[in-house]
Amino acid sequence: MAKAPILTPQADDFPRWYQDLINKAELADNGPVRGTMVIRPYGYGLWERMQQEMDARIKDAGASNAYFPLFIPQSYLTREAEHVEGFAPELAVVTHGGGKELEEPVVVRPTSETIINDYFSKWVQSYRDLPLLINQWANVVRWEMRPRVFLRTTEFLWQEGHTAHATYEDAREYAAYIHKEVYADFMINVLGIDVVLGRKTPKERFAGAINTLTLEGMMGDGKALQMGTSHELGQNFAKAFNTSYLSKDGKQELVWQTSWGSSTRMVGGLIMSHGDDNGLRVPPRLAPVQAVVLAIKGDDAVIAKVREIGDQLKAAGIRVQVDDRTDTPFGRRAVDWELKGVPVRIEVGPRDLENGTAMLARRIPGGKEPVRIDELVGMLPKVLEEDQALLLAQSRERRESRTSDVKTIEEAAEAAVAGGWARIRWADLGPEGEAKLAEQAVTVRCLVSEDGSVPESDDAPGAIAIVARAY
Amino acid sequence: MAKAPILTPQADDFPRWYQDLINKAELADNGPVRGTMVIRPYGYGLWERMQQEMDARIKDAGASNAYFPLFIPQSYLTREAEHVEGFAPELAVVTHGGGKELEEPVVVRPTSETIINDYFSKWVQSYRDLPLLINQWANVVRWEMRPRVFLRTTEFLWQEGHTAHATYEDAREYAAYIHKEVYADFMINVLGIDVVLGRKTPKERFAGAINTLTLEGMMGDGKALQMGTSHELGQNFAKAFNTSYLSKDGKQELVWQTSWGSSTRMVGGLIMSHGDDNGLRVPPRLAPVQAVVLAIKGDDAVIAKVREIGDQLKAAGIRVQVDDRTDTPFGRRAVDWELKGVPVRIEVGPRDLENGTAMLARRIPGGKEPVRIDELVGMLPKVLEEDQALLLAQSRERRESRTSDVKTIEEAAEAAVAGGWARIRWADLGPEGEAKLAEQAVTVRCLVSEDGSVPESDDAPGAIAIVARAY
Ligand SMILES: [Zn+2]
Ligand SMILES: [Zn+2]
Repeated sequence: MAKAPILTPQADDFPRWYQDLINKAELADNGPVRGTMVIRPYGYGLWERMQQEMDARIKDAGASNAYFPLFIPQSYLTREAEHVEGFAPELAVVTHGGGKELEEPVVVRPTSETIINDYFSKWVQSYRDLPLLINQWANVVRWEMRPRVFLRTTEFLWQEGHTAHATYEDAREYAAYIHKEVYADFMINVLGIDVVLGRKTPKERFAGAINTLTLEGMMGDGKALQMGTSHELGQNFAKAFNTSYLSKDGKQELVWQTSWGSSTRMVGGLIMSHGDDNGLRVPPRLAPVQAVVLAIKGDDAVIAKVREIGDQLKAAGIRVQVDDRTDTPFGRRAVDWELKGVPVRIEVGPRDLENGTAMLARRIPGGKEPVRIDELVGMLPKVLEEDQALLLAQSRERRESRTSDVKTIEEAAEAAVAGGWARIRWADLGPEGEAKLAEQAVTVRCLVSEDGSVPESDDAPGAIAIVARAY
Repeated sequence: MAKAPILTPQADDFPRWYQDLINKAELADNGPVRGTMVIRPYGYGLWERMQQEMDARIKDAGASNAYFPLFIPQSYLTREAEHVEGFAPELAVVTHGGGKELEEPVVVRPTSETIINDYFSKWVQSYRDLPLLINQWANVVRWEMRPRVFLRTTEFLWQEGHTAHATYEDAREYAAYIHKEVYADFMINVLGIDVVLGRKTPKERFAGAINTLTLEGMMGDGKALQMGTSHELGQNFAKAFNTSYLSKDGKQELVWQTSWGSSTRMVGGLIMSHGDDNGLRVPPRLAPVQAVVLAIKGDDAVIAKVREIGDQLKAAGIRVQVDDRTDTPFGRRAVDWELKGVPVRIEVGPRDLENGTAMLARRIPGGKEPVRIDELVGMLPKVLEEDQALLLAQSRERRESRTSDVKTIEEAAEAAVAGGWARIRWADLGPEGEAKLAEQAVTVRCLVSEDGSVPESDDAPGAIAIVARAY
């Protein structure tokens, strides 16, 4: 076709394609304060579905939701900083409230680690109070110098889990459980992203942790995105906050802790994993709208039919939307649903009514074919599951084809700079190699074992480093 | 019983009873920054259930969720204030971010009215874009000088709906629909609070509105709590933000708008409506835990049995929790569930096993009786619905018995100061009478029609003012 493309093609300029897609699919706008974003209804619908699926898994893991304040006293974060310029540059600081200058400035939470641990130290008294498993859905603020919508924003939405356990083993198992049964299960089976589960190197892990588990996804341009992390904190916070409990034997013991988080970044990961030059492609299990039923023309019989089909699909448990806005040209609406990545479009025109057929357009594999309307309810669940599987297969295929096994630091850097991942023995790379890669903005995303499992320690024999450029 | 009461009795000191209950039932703690709160898991569970029920109704009303930034530029709220002391005292102001002083201070949203309207003016172009129906779940900050947990906190959680319509009638109908089908339906049928639906007087209505609809609940001490409001905004914001659309006839027209909100205040309303001297009583349709199955002793057979009962009730669709923490004395756990107001307790001890019975303790009507374990699944849904109805009946009974019809302003003030509501003809009160009542901290909560409907205008003939002290 000679028509100008709707989006900048991925191959021309991937970052620009990403921004175009977010604008045209009406996922988000920039906020008025630099680095903030307005998440528009369709974009927020994606996040809501992520929340639902994650929240169910978090509750199955035994954690309860709670809510801690947005405002954290300055003294929690730093005892030295005399003036607010002494704060870390990522912090937003409230200096005025109640119409006057505050005696002590207050920080807008960049994370709730400190405030939650302060309450843990009050709530945990006895072994009976353990494990204490808390999750919070909240907004957090980290002042962002180079913002990019969904990926790096001054304010973002996330969940942060914080837990306290009686033993090292229990905390360790829990961090691993969240990594695997909450995060990986959601990302692989719902988001359809073939994430790699691994362990961060000491350089890359969270400062307060003794072990950081990560999930890394390969994006459409071959770069990596860290999709979530689960930390073993050891007793670092327990010592700082004196969080201890009276054991069954009557001894006072420090707790062992974990923390874990994932955020609206995942929306960015979704876009960059599954999007193509025509827009987004949303995996059916996630999709807020799995099928849209379009009236091609504003004919009464057609409109009655699309509504009827909509009701039938809804009754069959499919998340469906009826598009009977025939004031707007059909072609424009079809392109819009394509941009938004709704898995299935069912298009009904006057001629279809006579035949009892509709056109079924599938966004994920592409293509269009006539189907019998009375077979839709029966066939759609199968079609949606096929499409779900296809996205995951494509994500795996990309990662496999763009990952190379290399032997030297130079080869690793080359592969990453060229837009792919490299696998290199950690014994051949090590902290010095890691520092060298950093000069080219290449990082070790994680360490994995040869059998694909997560190494049990920093120096587990045979560990392989996965090396890439990252968002 | 000679035991000291667990809570300050309501009759001795209602505010203190309220605070005691919140502490002892572990609903919330004070946050470290004055006026903020930590919502603990059980308290947050109540809010989550409120969100679920409200969100479903909001979506049925056709609105979509979205998310707007926490930070609002100073210029949106005031064009005059030179220094941040010039801001309204309710505002929290961020002056530092990115490690330095901001060129323009940023306000933490006290409401999103301005920022949402700014985007509405961009998003609305044509009649095809209307109605635009948006809701947001978010935290907001209003610096609070006399905080009280859940009722008045510096930070609170809420939903705020904002809509734009093509016509006055459409906006008006939508505001009324939200008032009735979202808020009243939820508060009456889920919260079990017999709220009065009315119209605010010009003095009490939201400054930006041409009509404010309200829902007022009577609390246990006879005071009123405003549980939610739905505003017709007319074209006030449309003019300020120049939000206009191209009509079907090709004319540029201003939109008509509504906004509506409800918050974590409702948790305070729930406590003060249904709580008694033994703690909270949670209506079954809301309850995050509808039934708790308690093992009286740590006997293996007993523990197996409570888990089995828990599984059966769960399979029957009841929100159930098993309490087999037999490390903690049974009496203490029973008191704790009583404080938390879980509607039904099923208590199982070794002797019960032999008989195939359990003790069924009902928190709402009170009392305990043996029941056959194999009849539980069959009987509980009926028990829970009875208890739901009883709470609503008690709420209605309280309101009716503590509301008096009066003829003079003096009588109205007396009734309110004594801890009740008064009904007086608006024609006999009027704005002057309203001002007089204010001297005794008594307000007109709303205007209602004689038949209980909502007056259609400020001067609807026969309107009755409901007068009370309020939270
Ligand atoms: Zn100042
Ligand atoms: Zn300064």
